[in-house]
Amino acid sequence: MADKITKRDEDYSRWYLDIIDKARLAEDSGVKGCMVIRPEGYAIWEKMQQTLDKMFKDTGHVNAYFPMFIPVSYFSKEAEHVAGFAKECAVVTHHRLMTTSDGKITVDPDAELTEPLVVRPTSETIIWNTYKNWIQSYRDLPLLINQWANICRWEMRTRPFLRTTEFLWQEGHTAHATYEEAEAEASQMLGVYKAFLEDYLAVPVFDGQKTENEKFPGADHTYTVETMTQDRRAIQVGTSHHLGTTFSKAFDVTYQSSQGTLEYPFATSWGVTTRLIGAMIMVHSDDQGFVCPPRIAPIQVVAVPIYKKDEEKDDVISTLKGLRERFKTLDQFSFKIDERESLSPGFKFNDWELKGIPLRLELGPKDLANKSCVLARRDTGEKISVPLDQLEERIPVILESIQTTLFKKAQAFQQQNTYSVETYEEFKISLEEKPGFYSVYFAGTTDDEDKIKEETKATGRCIPFALQGEAGKCFYTGKETAQRVIFAKAY
Amino acid sequence: MADKITKRDEDYSRWYLDIIDKARLAEDSGVKGCMVIRPEGYAIWEKMQQTLDKMFKDTGHVNAYFPMFIPVSYFSKEAEHVAGFAKECAVVTHHRLMTTSDGKITVDPDAELTEPLVVRPTSETIIWNTYKNWIQSYRDLPLLINQWANICRWEMRTRPFLRTTEFLWQEGHTAHATYEEAEAEASQMLGVYKAFLEDYLAVPVFDGQKTENEKFPGADHTYTVETMTQDRRAIQVGTSHHLGTTFSKAFDVTYQSSQGTLEYPFATSWGVTTRLIGAMIMVHSDDQGFVCPPRIAPIQVVAVPIYKKDEEKDDVISTLKGLRERFKTLDQFSFKIDERESLSPGFKFNDWELKGIPLRLELGPKDLANKSCVLARRDTGEKISVPLDQLEERIPVILESIQTTLFKKAQAFQQQNTYSVETYEEFKISLEEKPGFYSVYFAGTTDDEDKIKEETKATGRCIPFALQGEAGKCFYTGKETAQRVIFAKAY
Repeated sequence: MADKITKRDEDYSRWYLDIIDKARLAEDSGVKGCMVIRPEGYAIWEKMQQTLDKMFKDTGHVNAYFPMFIPVSYFSKEAEHVAGFAKECAVVTHHRLMTTSDGKITVDPDAELTEPLVVRPTSETIIWNTYKNWIQSYRDLPLLINQWANICRWEMRTRPFLRTTEFLWQEGHTAHATYEEAEAEASQMLGVYKAFLEDYLAVPVFDGQKTENEKFPGADHTYTVETMTQDRRAIQVGTSHHLGTTFSKAFDVTYQSSQGTLEYPFATSWGVTTRLIGAMIMVHSDDQGFVCPPRIAPIQVVAVPIYKKDEEKDDVISTLKGLRERFKTLDQFSFKIDERESLSPGFKFNDWELKGIPLRLELGPKDLANKSCVLARRDTGEKISVPLDQLEERIPVILESIQTTLFKKAQAFQQQNTYSVETYEEFKISLEEKPGFYSVYFAGTTDDEDKIKEETKATGRCIPFALQGEAGKCFYTGKETAQRVIFAKAY
Repeated sequence: MADKITKRDEDYSRWYLDIIDKARLAEDSGVKGCMVIRPEGYAIWEKMQQTLDKMFKDTGHVNAYFPMFIPVSYFSKEAEHVAGFAKECAVVTHHRLMTTSDGKITVDPDAELTEPLVVRPTSETIIWNTYKNWIQSYRDLPLLINQWANICRWEMRTRPFLRTTEFLWQEGHTAHATYEEAEAEASQMLGVYKAFLEDYLAVPVFDGQKTENEKFPGADHTYTVETMTQDRRAIQVGTSHHLGTTFSKAFDVTYQSSQGTLEYPFATSWGVTTRLIGAMIMVHSDDQGFVCPPRIAPIQVVAVPIYKKDEEKDDVISTLKGLRERFKTLDQFSFKIDERESLSPGFKFNDWELKGIPLRLELGPKDLANKSCVLARRDTGEKISVPLDQLEERIPVILESIQTTLFKKAQAFQQQNTYSVETYEEFKISLEEKPGFYSVYFAGTTDDEDKIKEETKATGRCIPFALQGEAGKCFYTGKETAQRVIFAKAY
């Protein structure tokens, strides 16, 4: 069958690409490293945007828009920052094309820019260059801004949603009078991400701090949420940075405090990207196709009409249309009737399973006679017969059950594949035998972390808030430490 | 007073920039031709997006996302198209920066792209390159896609919102089996734009077809909606193009018809941009500041508390907070209480007038004693005393009256400044004395139109649907024609 997908345990990478292809979420654009987000995939991103945007506004943020082009001189003002991004930048050097004498279209050498422009890989520099005008007094603080935008990081090895040259994201950029207020903001926004991931995407996460090696270039420290894929690797799904005064100093932004002194404001930035869609696929989907949690699915229920004769068809379709009218009273709920002709019910069942619709409603003449229909859960495959007059009560309950089941299953998987080890030797052997998250005491240097990465391909994913406490011996150096770090191979 | 704005009849261009500055809608970014859209301006764009997005979805469209980078080879496939855009393109030629031996950050010459990339000035080429995979059969049609995106056209002379190097827009790109279906789509979407402009932005428009000179590069024909600024120039506020088979042929996209033949699909594209905000300013604002129609305003009513003593303040503020609770039942309505300390009511009145809030609510101790408050209309300045217990009924009525008054005023202005002339001589003299829209019979060539532009700076803005009918003599060539064209100077 043409729409069959590769099984996870045959070829996990191929399986991931098959899901994206068959569920029509995205496809290659022909432009190196850039994908086309298809309507089915973009509808998920729209729902993510709506949900997150409300969460950001409920915590006091407003949206704005800053240029996508950043002059190299702005970009260079903060050394650590430019070092972190300079090697993966799309650079605009000319502003015109021309036709050569042999009719070829080419770059016009006479239209070279005086100063090259970088296509934003992140917007701290252009935004702090602007904040210079917006921040004069303590009354201007806190400044709580978010931007929805496209971003470019020139990646050599790409994978749809997870790592693409261009991607979509939001980036929060805030300014605060004190270190503590910026700290509260950075923590709050990590909490927003964790809540969004767990409550809407049903993606369980470890929340914690990044190690020195993995923090954002220019940050004082970085918070992260990390989840586990079904091949037991880590995916970073959101970060929130306490930037200290790095950017206020680089752009000479000061404010007059209530005591009349001139001070540098403290900054945060935080973001999530279209990578969330990739993470969701990697966490929930199965060998039958895409699995989309009901709360983020663009369509919750698809009805497949079953009939042979024309009069059966009329009855079935008109009953389904009646249901569609009744369901309009349900909140946050989208119901689709698959009226495609010349496709068998079996084909349609398979098609909507591939596409990840949470719940399928089957209605045929026998069901009609019984005044009931069949609901088929995408997560478990379970089929439930429900009287037609109970659907408004039952469907929301079943959808919530799917949402919870997906979360619990992913959480159990993450817990089952999170190990504690005490020594580096044990770690190396275990990581090969049992891929997963390794929670270890770690007090090593950034060089130590580099060496671990070189030898094992595992990196320090996060210093999870939940696992700090008692002291123990660093698995790499043997030094006493209270810091536990999760090491894992990552996407 | 620092926040005073230039009067329209002193310096119209300066007035426009003052409005944008004082209402904090946008500001210069320091990046050539690119603006920062401030939160106050972006909130208007968000509301425009929400409204239009719903109108697009109600007419059967879905959103998707295509890369911002277009390889020069795609871009060059359609000769007329590339000729139209090649001279104003940002071109990415390198993918890395480097640090020179003296510590300067510069473009890495070793990271030159094999093929330069254009930052999209419009997306027909990248989208039709993709549609090749999406369209095989008549069953795949119509294909009704929209994209919200940023766009780059390298402009030499820029003006915030009206003409910027980077701007935000939506672009619809559809494919149809027949010429007639594409024609119906192009017309329908122009109608959506006209309805949006008139019903939400209170901006009256002439809708019609573009002259040959002014049509989109690559289009069969272009429809346009044009409005008039207060300095009596035209602004194009939306276009809808019937692209014929230009792009399906350029990208070799064919479909199998129901009869089994291979056919080229017909295309449309249509867009509106952040220019709409500039047009709205130019149509409605006055010498007191920005004027925002209630249906598109992010905030409809601002309350300014008036008090001297502390106990007065408590009563006034708690009454306003009570109103805020009550107003939560009002649909599409946002109510803000201006609680800023140490600013006088007079300062606040002026401030909210500058910022274009449609209705101001004033409440002081005397009003409280009378169980009433004062509502001040931004459009007319009229002050209306309203009993507190009637606010839920009265406010929506007054807001609708503001909306209608703004539309009618702009419509009357447009009508008063639209003239009919019969000869080119008459046109030239009248245009200088009385700037405005000139409705004339026109049967000239594209060269004739070029000459008119050269001599008068006026261009053919549109062939308005409403003004076609009886025949007359072309004002330029004297030839008999039934075609009336509006000529005007334009932004």
